[in-house]
Amino acid sequence: MKINKYHWTFKLFSIFAIGIIAFVASCFSTPISGELVLFDLSIAEDATPEVVKRILMASDNPISEIKFEKGTYHFYPDKGFEKFVYLSNHGDLMTNTPFPIEHFRNLVIDGQGSTFIFHGVMIPFLIEESENITVKNVSIDWAESFHSEGVIVANDSVKKTFDMQISDEYPYEIRNEQIYFIKSYYEHSLGQSILFDPERNAIAYNTESYTGISTKGKINIQNNVNEIKYKYEHDGRAPEYKNIGVEDKLRVEELKPGLVRVYNHKKNMPPVGLVLIMKGEQGFNRVSPAFRVSHTKGFNGTNVNIHHAGGMGIIAENSSDLILDNFNITPSKGRMVSTTADATHFVGCSGKVVLKNCTFSNQLDDASNVHGTYQKIVDILGSNKIGVRMMHHQQKGFVIGQPDETLGFVRLENAFFPYEKSTIKSIEYINNRYQIITLNKKLPSDIQLGDLVENLDGYPDFLVQNCKIINNRARGLLISNPASTVIENNFFSTEMEAILFPVESGYWYESGNAANVVIKGNTFQDCQHGGKNRGVIRFDTDDDNKNIAFKNIKILDNTFNQFDNLILEITNIDGLLFKGNIITNSKTFNQLHNENPAIRIEASKNIELLENTYQGMAKQILETDASQPSLSFQ
Amino acid sequence: MKINKYHWTFKLFSIFAIGIIAFVASCFSTPISGELVLFDLSIAEDATPEVVKRILMASDNPISEIKFEKGTYHFYPDKGFEKFVYLSNHGDLMTNTPFPIEHFRNLVIDGQGSTFIFHGVMIPFLIEESENITVKNVSIDWAESFHSEGVIVANDSVKKTFDMQISDEYPYEIRNEQIYFIKSYYEHSLGQSILFDPERNAIAYNTESYTGISTKGKINIQNNVNEIKYKYEHDGRAPEYKNIGVEDKLRVEELKPGLVRVYNHKKNMPPVGLVLIMKGEQGFNRVSPAFRVSHTKGFNGTNVNIHHAGGMGIIAENSSDLILDNFNITPSKGRMVSTTADATHFVGCSGKVVLKNCTFSNQLDDASNVHGTYQKIVDILGSNKIGVRMMHHQQKGFVIGQPDETLGFVRLENAFFPYEKSTIKSIEYINNRYQIITLNKKLPSDIQLGDLVENLDGYPDFLVQNCKIINNRARGLLISNPASTVIENNFFSTEMEAILFPVESGYWYESGNAANVVIKGNTFQDCQHGGKNRGVIRFDTDDDNKNIAFKNIKILDNTFNQFDNLILEITNIDGLLFKGNIITNSKTFNQLHNENPAIRIEASKNIELLENTYQGMAKQILETDASQPSLSFQ
Repeated sequence: MKINKYHWTFKLFSIFAIGIIAFVASCFSTPISGELVLFDLSIAEDATPEVVKRILMASDNPISEIKFEKGTYHFYPDKGFEKFVYLSNHGDLMTNTPFPIEHFRNLVIDGQGSTFIFHGVMIPFLIEESENITVKNVSIDWAESFHSEGVIVANDSVKKTFDMQISDEYPYEIRNEQIYFIKSYYEHSLGQSILFDPERNAIAYNTESYTGISTKGKINIQNNVNEIKYKYEHDGRAPEYKNIGVEDKLRVEELKPGLVRVYNHKKNMPPVGLVLIMKGEQGFNRVSPAFRVSHTKGFNGTNVNIHHAGGMGIIAENSSDLILDNFNITPSKGRMVSTTADATHFVGCSGKVVLKNCTFSNQLDDASNVHGTYQKIVDILGSNKIGVRMMHHQQKGFVIGQPDETLGFVRLENAFFPYEKSTIKSIEYINNRYQIITLNKKLPSDIQLGDLVENLDGYPDFLVQNCKIINNRARGLLISNPASTVIENNFFSTEMEAILFPVESGYWYESGNAANVVIKGNTFQDCQHGGKNRGVIRFDTDDDNKNIAFKNIKILDNTFNQFDNLILEITNIDGLLFKGNIITNSKTFNQLHNENPAIRIEASKNIELLENTYQGMAKQILETDASQPSLSFQ
Repeated sequence: MKINKYHWTFKLFSIFAIGIIAFVASCFSTPISGELVLFDLSIAEDATPEVVKRILMASDNPISEIKFEKGTYHFYPDKGFEKFVYLSNHGDLMTNTPFPIEHFRNLVIDGQGSTFIFHGVMIPFLIEESENITVKNVSIDWAESFHSEGVIVANDSVKKTFDMQISDEYPYEIRNEQIYFIKSYYEHSLGQSILFDPERNAIAYNTESYTGISTKGKINIQNNVNEIKYKYEHDGRAPEYKNIGVEDKLRVEELKPGLVRVYNHKKNMPPVGLVLIMKGEQGFNRVSPAFRVSHTKGFNGTNVNIHHAGGMGIIAENSSDLILDNFNITPSKGRMVSTTADATHFVGCSGKVVLKNCTFSNQLDDASNVHGTYQKIVDILGSNKIGVRMMHHQQKGFVIGQPDETLGFVRLENAFFPYEKSTIKSIEYINNRYQIITLNKKLPSDIQLGDLVENLDGYPDFLVQNCKIINNRARGLLISNPASTVIENNFFSTEMEAILFPVESGYWYESGNAANVVIKGNTFQDCQHGGKNRGVIRFDTDDDNKNIAFKNIKILDNTFNQFDNLILEITNIDGLLFKGNIITNSKTFNQLHNENPAIRIEASKNIELLENTYQGMAKQILETDASQPSLSFQ
């Protein structure tokens, strides 16, 4: 251990130490050194109990670094350290972890090239209320996956059936004509699904015309259910209510062991040779992210490979200065899929958030997602006090900010930016849907129930650099960030938008617009191949008005090598420079939406299109509404 | 507020007060007085937020008493104070309460005759880590019930169908031929069921031949599921696993709104005119007990009426000196059912536990249940350290004891009493299934993995006096208590045993045998009318051996006015005096098991039957095995 200045400070203190001072000092001193703990392969069969034991001793016996002899370590949940977690954009659950990193400072966990194999529902790294934590040189995988895969081996478009071959890796059973995939600590139904193309190792071209497999439908028979009254706002989308009025419509029959026939799918029958990925019901199928970081200042993930997770690679909340370098999400073991949700996801994070030199591939949701939360004002409780409701069930338990952080009051139908600001005095957590916020000044005079609040300090300087974002479901980057965003020198090949900037208010209640964005030097290869009729880069608002939502956007020197027309789709922008970009046609796939222009602009101003090269196939390069009558593509 | 000695003590202290002393004093002074808080009917529409607000302020502004102006108050969960609770013999869940009584001393909550109506999943009174808490003069009910009722209006024993009329009070829908009952904050399937006889307002005579309705059965189609391996012991009965290999076999069809036909029931068709009570799947249907008391010294429930709860009336754990006086469980609103589980239930409780002057009627499980827990030794971690596993999923999270309490080491196949004792040094809670116990002395030399531990200090002096225990499902009293038990001057009319003393090890892992029991002056009226072939009073062990499990039992001066023969069924007792009892025949129902004797004795010694009167119909009054060859009924 090196002796550092914090130690010397403490030593000087101790010269004058008497009881009371020692007591005070123990509250405020924060030595950054501690033991270097080395685990060897003797614990590899189930490393959980020994790792938990040592970490729980850290308050008495501090740790500076935990190293693992290089090798493969298994981690089981049975003796993991328990915690209830509210996880943004996941299910909330009582879970457990081998790494309960809570109230740590300056800790390095170094796998030294090891592979950690997890079993069942657990969170490998649970990092909370900590500072300067590094995890490096480790690969993370799960013995059994939280999704299941089936190869399409036959279909019948007349009888509307398709047949699926399911390997022994994905044990299943059929209950009441529904298929359930059974794992040792988990099970899932067919549920959410999408097609992968094994030849391309990517989401299948035009999967939208085949998937999701239609599993549920409305029921016919209810008695008096519509008379049920709710005193307060009620979230019918929440897992506990979502089955009301709904039943299974699909039917699954086993033809022989490992081969099943699926009836009653409503879209086109999936083509033979593609792989159907199934991950169970929305609201129940995100239970085990690989990293959960919350209320932490400084997290470094370096040389980390996440091959699977039952949820996101990393979900970070209310944290700052998060640097992911060579932090990769890639599948293993011949699986089509890596993580079953986003590779990375940042809610209410600030300072710097950096993704560099990363590969995000084959995950079942965005490569990254950055936003805050809108919380709805449901009670005015005093001159400076409001009761707020968490609107989306995957935001339950989220605390919007810390004392002295700036809240904006928002009424989205009037403006996408706050109509007034204040700072937080305190937040009283009542329950996962309801908190009481006291502000440092009086409430706005024209405040209305139903207005939203967002944390204006909860947005980062976001940098995505030298990353490869490929073969995954959904977007590349989904960004609601009014601070600043730089996206440069990346390679995108995504089945939906490569980059989407939304202002979203009605469903997810994910706050933030976008300003100060630079998208530079990236290559976009055949994005939107999943089949949706949307641009490769897209700015969009839920609210259909002409108010400005996005400001100061620069899209420079990128290459769009696309099979289809629509490259840039924007609305509600003030200030966009689209310059030096090259748009070619890849001819990789047949065009799906050949009626589209290359660029579509609505309700925007101060738009410049300069020095771009167009070699695509759109009949009309630029389509604008009345907001930009004289704009031309250059 | 009266000024009490604690206040004066504090005042004296304050004369000398300087910062550091004030700080220390604030840690150790425990004033018993505080504000008298009066709530009036202005909060009646939803009393939750105001009650929560005041209780959360109590650390700054202590409360001695909370009174309610007499009237009806509604309590909704939406703004209730949240807590995750592990509840013995219930489901574990993140719940909420209007009364978060945690770390209180000397608090009285006085309803002054009010009725509290609860809505949805919440725990009315959550009392933890407190001392001397009284709740009095209040009635508790739920707006919507956690069970549902259907009147049998037709049946067809050839086609094996029955028809049920369901009132608008119980909204339902049919999904995939299964019926679901929908409430505003809850839903349940048919699940666990039993018949009530509305003429008798009690469990139907011989309901066992009709119920439970057979809802589930084994599936036929599994692929590779039997190859799934578990590294550690695995609880296939836990809610998350119990559906593996199982599917719905019942079919429900709506004939017209409110009238449904049920197909595929395997037992006898329920008779017309009876009421089928349905409460959903075991493992999911106990979510809202009325009172949860844990780690509390001194609780008084006086003049309390609990008309309903989605679980027990009161579940008390690791607490002492609990006095329930005129604490009644009775149905309201024309419902057949009061609470959907036990009226009262005590786990690991000590000191005095008293039930007096209570009525426990129409609940869906025992009137009272007293026991500890057996936890299984799964790891030997050092000379004085063991890892233990919670075996039943409804014991998850249970901490077996406090430092210095006495643990017994038990190997039930050898003896029903501990083979060695030690005291607890500390318990480290790892997760809900796994804890590490450090003992004050070395482990027994012959300790084996698989041995059990029980807390020998976690049993009470249990008194049940002047109570009426009637019309409920299951037993009257289910007692595993080696301390002492007095049951006197009560009236029992239960569909299973009036009083059952088990030693149970293989399923529930509820610890305790019985010793020092007095059952005196009670009346037993037509117990066991549900149809099971068991005694009215029964001592039983799971383990089929001749070891002594029960000691020093006195059954004196009781009246058994029974329709059927079997009165007393005992095994493994050393020391029973059955004296001065009168056994008559009520002729209320036809006999179900007329081959039985009145008294059956196995594997026991020191049994005396004296001065009893037999006026029943058994051909043979006494049946004994070789353990008591010369015993006679007198």
